[in-house]
Amino acid sequence: MSDSRAVIANKTAQLLQTMRAARPLVHNVANYVSMDVAANALLAIGASPAMVHAREEVAEFVAISGALVINIGTLSAPWVDSMLLAVDAAARHGKPWVLDPVGAGATRMRTDTVRSLLPHRPSIIRGNASEIMAVAGGAGAAPKGVDSANTTDEALAFAVSLAKHQGCIVVATGAIDVITDGHRVAKLANGSPIMAKVTALGCALSGVTGAFAATAGDPYDAALGAVAAFGIAGEMAAERAKGPGSFRVAFLDTLESIEGNDIKSRLKIVS
Amino acid sequence: MSDSRAVIANKTAQLLQTMRAARPLVHNVANYVSMDVAANALLAIGASPAMVHAREEVAEFVAISGALVINIGTLSAPWVDSMLLAVDAAARHGKPWVLDPVGAGATRMRTDTVRSLLPHRPSIIRGNASEIMAVAGGAGAAPKGVDSANTTDEALAFAVSLAKHQGCIVVATGAIDVITDGHRVAKLANGSPIMAKVTALGCALSGVTGAFAATAGDPYDAALGAVAAFGIAGEMAAERAKGPGSFRVAFLDTLESIEGNDIKSRLKIVS
Amino acid sequence: MSDSRAVIANKTAQLLQTMRAARPLVHNVANYVSMDVAANALLAIGASPAMVHAREEVAEFVAISGALVINIGTLSAPWVDSMLLAVDAAARHGKPWVLDPVGAGATRMRTDTVRSLLPHRPSIIRGNASEIMAVAGGAGAAPKGVDSANTTDEALAFAVSLAKHQGCIVVATGAIDVITDGHRVAKLANGSPIMAKVTALGCALSGVTGAFAATAGDPYDAALGAVAAFGIAGEMAAERAKGPGSFRVAFLDTLESIEGNDIKSRLKIVS
Repeated sequence: MSDSRAVIANKTAQLLQTMRAARPLVHNVANYVSMDVAANALLAIGASPAMVHAREEVAEFVAISGALVINIGTLSAPWVDSMLLAVDAAARHGKPWVLDPVGAGATRMRTDTVRSLLPHRPSIIRGNASEIMAVAGGAGAAPKGVDSANTTDEALAFAVSLAKHQGCIVVATGAIDVITDGHRVAKLANGSPIMAKVTALGCALSGVTGAFAATAGDPYDAALGAVAAFGIAGEMAAERAKGPGSFRVAFLDTLESIEGNDIKSRLKIVS
Repeated sequence: MSDSRAVIANKTAQLLQTMRAARPLVHNVANYVSMDVAANALLAIGASPAMVHAREEVAEFVAISGALVINIGTLSAPWVDSMLLAVDAAARHGKPWVLDPVGAGATRMRTDTVRSLLPHRPSIIRGNASEIMAVAGGAGAAPKGVDSANTTDEALAFAVSLAKHQGCIVVATGAIDVITDGHRVAKLANGSPIMAKVTALGCALSGVTGAFAATAGDPYDAALGAVAAFGIAGEMAAERAKGPGSFRVAFLDTLESIEGNDIKSRLKIVS
Repeated sequence: MSDSRAVIANKTAQLLQTMRAARPLVHNVANYVSMDVAANALLAIGASPAMVHAREEVAEFVAISGALVINIGTLSAPWVDSMLLAVDAAARHGKPWVLDPVGAGATRMRTDTVRSLLPHRPSIIRGNASEIMAVAGGAGAAPKGVDSANTTDEALAFAVSLAKHQGCIVVATGAIDVITDGHRVAKLANGSPIMAKVTALGCALSGVTGAFAATAGDPYDAALGAVAAFGIAGEMAAERAKGPGSFRVAFLDTLESIEGNDIKSRLKIVS
């Protein structure tokens, strides 16, 4: 049985507060497009982001970080090498790590890179519906570049199966966000359609998920909390925005100011 | 003879609508500075951007895209290799591609890179006045780094000659934007001086030109439409901005909300 | 004896005006996170930024620039090679250059890179307190990734010693900003705590310091002027901001609009 709305809201509010007090160092091997907004989202919500990718230092940096986030958005061969060194270090040092399989399924290189990363056991995989379907091996997945061509409803069975098979948490984000450990499934309906009009917000969410994973004992709570806080902040910011430019500004403001009470009053769980 | 103002405005309004309905995937081999704002401009105006540069996947990605945009802003040797693979794939798959020759003329590497790309027949070349003069082989071109040291009036003859010689569309942007296929010449006077105070807006325009090129039958209409919509959005945003920071925000908002009627009422053609 | 508040304010106001009139080309070998905001800060305050890092062109570009800024934020081996070529060219062409030792002390690669750059004699070194302590060889330095774990008060003796040993200007920024040439010490108390919630503002300040260094006869005046103008703009912007998102927007607006009188009325020197 899944947790009730009140339990999730209370856990998330508590987790947000604990994370802000700890201010975890989140190590991102990120993509060029998302680095600015992901770093700003992490700073705004209260974590300490770093973007480090050189093969000479990536393992050393994992060791001093609270969590690692691997994002395959703007791949190249040297970065794939560094990603493998980083996730290997995460395993050795017992650090949680989040995989964001940007554009999985769109090219062979992306599919191969995901396949080489999965055996290193990510704690959490977060992608859009098409990406999660592609990672799960779904033949029906048809990503449109890096944007999703599927709904999370279509991705649900793939997400559950992937989570079971990998023994990790899987998050598929969209109009409805799905979080599952293969047994429990939570569906959240916060957020705003305008979030799809701002680049790299998915990547920023993966970064924030890293901050929560560095803090929570259970990665399921971390994933749920990050998705809830991010979506609710998006919903609050959308109420003040005139378009994608002013939305991004209001969103970063809201990530900084969002409080436990906002989560308790606004969290939307769907069944 | 060139098209009348009304014909251009109507075509552009129609093209904008068609582009938004099709939501073309625009593949950018972009530069590090412009990736964020170019991706956001493309999302805001209604296209689907992707930034992909690895030699292992760049050709494969061109095949699924509606248009390709090559931007030489932050060059390095591996990226030049990927650009050549990408434009070769564009030719094989019959995809339109846009060349943004950032800083052409400033260093030998930039001049050489442009020379190696030109035989692959870009559909549209978009740069500032100094860049277009440098690409056309103008001895008088004196770029100041990546900012123009010339007016588009000085660049006009070079643009026309380059368009004729290359058999492509050439766009030189500045206070007056010049669009030519070597025979027809259109001069547009929309935009705002504040656009020169925000980094990478030229790169973002090249991206948006890719979205229009993916949609229009004639690359001349695509270039004209992109320049018109972009300049008019800039002019509208400048009316709400207090400086370059708030301009960028208002500009992204306006790219999303701009409609055919804005183009019909505001388009400024100069003769 | 150090300059009085009035002398510093007048010099800075004059320098800002001279820099805007000259609009120096500032060559940045920057990091991926900061490129957007650093370029926008440089454009806003009135300089002409360029981001150029390829080993094939970096030395050629230094020759046409007014100043060089080396930022080790997102290191990799090819970039380190380019940094060494760039600083070597700066020495040959007599160009001032600014070193931003991002994350110095956090990994061996960062420490080694700084060590290989220092003999090329930077004009100005600008970092946070922990970075300056690490560059000076302080055993007590404990950087938290790329964020400081120390105050500039703790860093003061290290900054003075580093400046003397290197024969350069050292700037340690934080709640109090310290500028020293090893003999004179200035402490500035402008700025706002919200600046630590926006990514890469330290990098942007290093870029702006390059613009001032391209203009001033004395690098001490350049460093002091850049820190003063940047901090005062930050303080003015914070008065209009609701959070880190709207702060960044207001900050870029203010960098463009800030005038000599703002500096004269707001400069805070502490003793």
